[in-house]
Amino acid sequence: MNAPARNDKETVVAAAMRVLAENGLPGLSMRRIADELDIQVSALYWHFPNKQALLAAVSAQIVGSDPQPEGMDAAARALRDRLLAHQDGAEIVSSSLALGLLDLPVRAELVRAAKKTGVDAASAEVAADTLVHYVIGYTFHEQQRLHAAIVGTAEASVDLVPAGAQDRGDDFEAGLAMIIAGVQASASIR
Amino acid sequence: MNAPARNDKETVVAAAMRVLAENGLPGLSMRRIADELDIQVSALYWHFPNKQALLAAVSAQIVGSDPQPEGMDAAARALRDRLLAHQDGAEIVSSSLALGLLDLPVRAELVRAAKKTGVDAASAEVAADTLVHYVIGYTFHEQQRLHAAIVGTAEASVDLVPAGAQDRGDDFEAGLAMIIAGVQASASIR
Repeated sequence: MNAPARNDKETVVAAAMRVLAENGLPGLSMRRIADELDIQVSALYWHFPNKQALLAAVSAQIVGSDPQPEGMDAAARALRDRLLAHQDGAEIVSSSLALGLLDLPVRAELVRAAKKTGVDAASAEVAADTLVHYVIGYTFHEQQRLHAAIVGTAEASVDLVPAGAQDRGDDFEAGLAMIIAGVQASASIR
Repeated sequence: MNAPARNDKETVVAAAMRVLAENGLPGLSMRRIADELDIQVSALYWHFPNKQALLAAVSAQIVGSDPQPEGMDAAARALRDRLLAHQDGAEIVSSSLALGLLDLPVRAELVRAAKKTGVDAASAEVAADTLVHYVIGYTFHEQQRLHAAIVGTAEASVDLVPAGAQDRGDDFEAGLAMIIAGVQASASIR
């Protein structure tokens, strides 16, 4: 029903995004993507050498290539929003990053903003990676909870959320502020 | 070949740990655990209402119940070591936490140690969760890289690791120190 005009790379990635939206990462198989395009699985390998390469292209789509908002806080928030906008976004992007197949546009802004606090280049890299690990770890947790809520297995009574935090977003902000305070403190030590 | 003397809960968890060590999380099926014990799959449900409950018991085994080392740094390191000691440890534990099915022993020590810096109770909870999200995010990344290296898909040339960081452990320590500096800075603001 979604037969493409052309089976180019973008068409394949767009089909993969639709399969992801409907089935999540566990259902994102080469078979389903091929079915979505009404082509043979083998045809997908003409565009992508393997599934990891296709997932990396999906990840690049998730994180986007737009100019990033300025500042460590705004950039970190933008990354979380991007991940949350797609089913299993944190897991897919994390996997592509770990495989070294994804360039995270937000990372350059995180490094730049960290440097502005006065830390040296090496510490700015550490700050950027620490923020990325935090955002991915946090969002991975959020999306697993979301999935659990859908399948009805989450127990509302036990939670990693501190008592009194009504909104996961507030909790995210508090942790983010703490890490940024750490970057600034590292700068003032030098 | 590993037929147990008794099919009690611990025996099932021990079998699940062996299946995990051999097959990783994707291969940790109720079927394989039952085969490992030479019993019917249905017999597993006598001990655990569902797979999530069994994974939570596996998670509890991974994070252990020993007394935790004192201090935010030592406690965070201990959590990472525990996760790294088991295939896909970060993903399994993260999932059980998200489902609200796991009590993380190290969290109480993180809260206690954060309070010692002088932050209030709410900030100590935020500090503990931020550290947990960082450790899990970082270790999830490490284990995905490890898996990629085994299947040979990682490209060594592109990496989230800052240039010059020879050892992933050093990088972990640098990020950890930055977050702890942030907790301390939050205390001094009050």
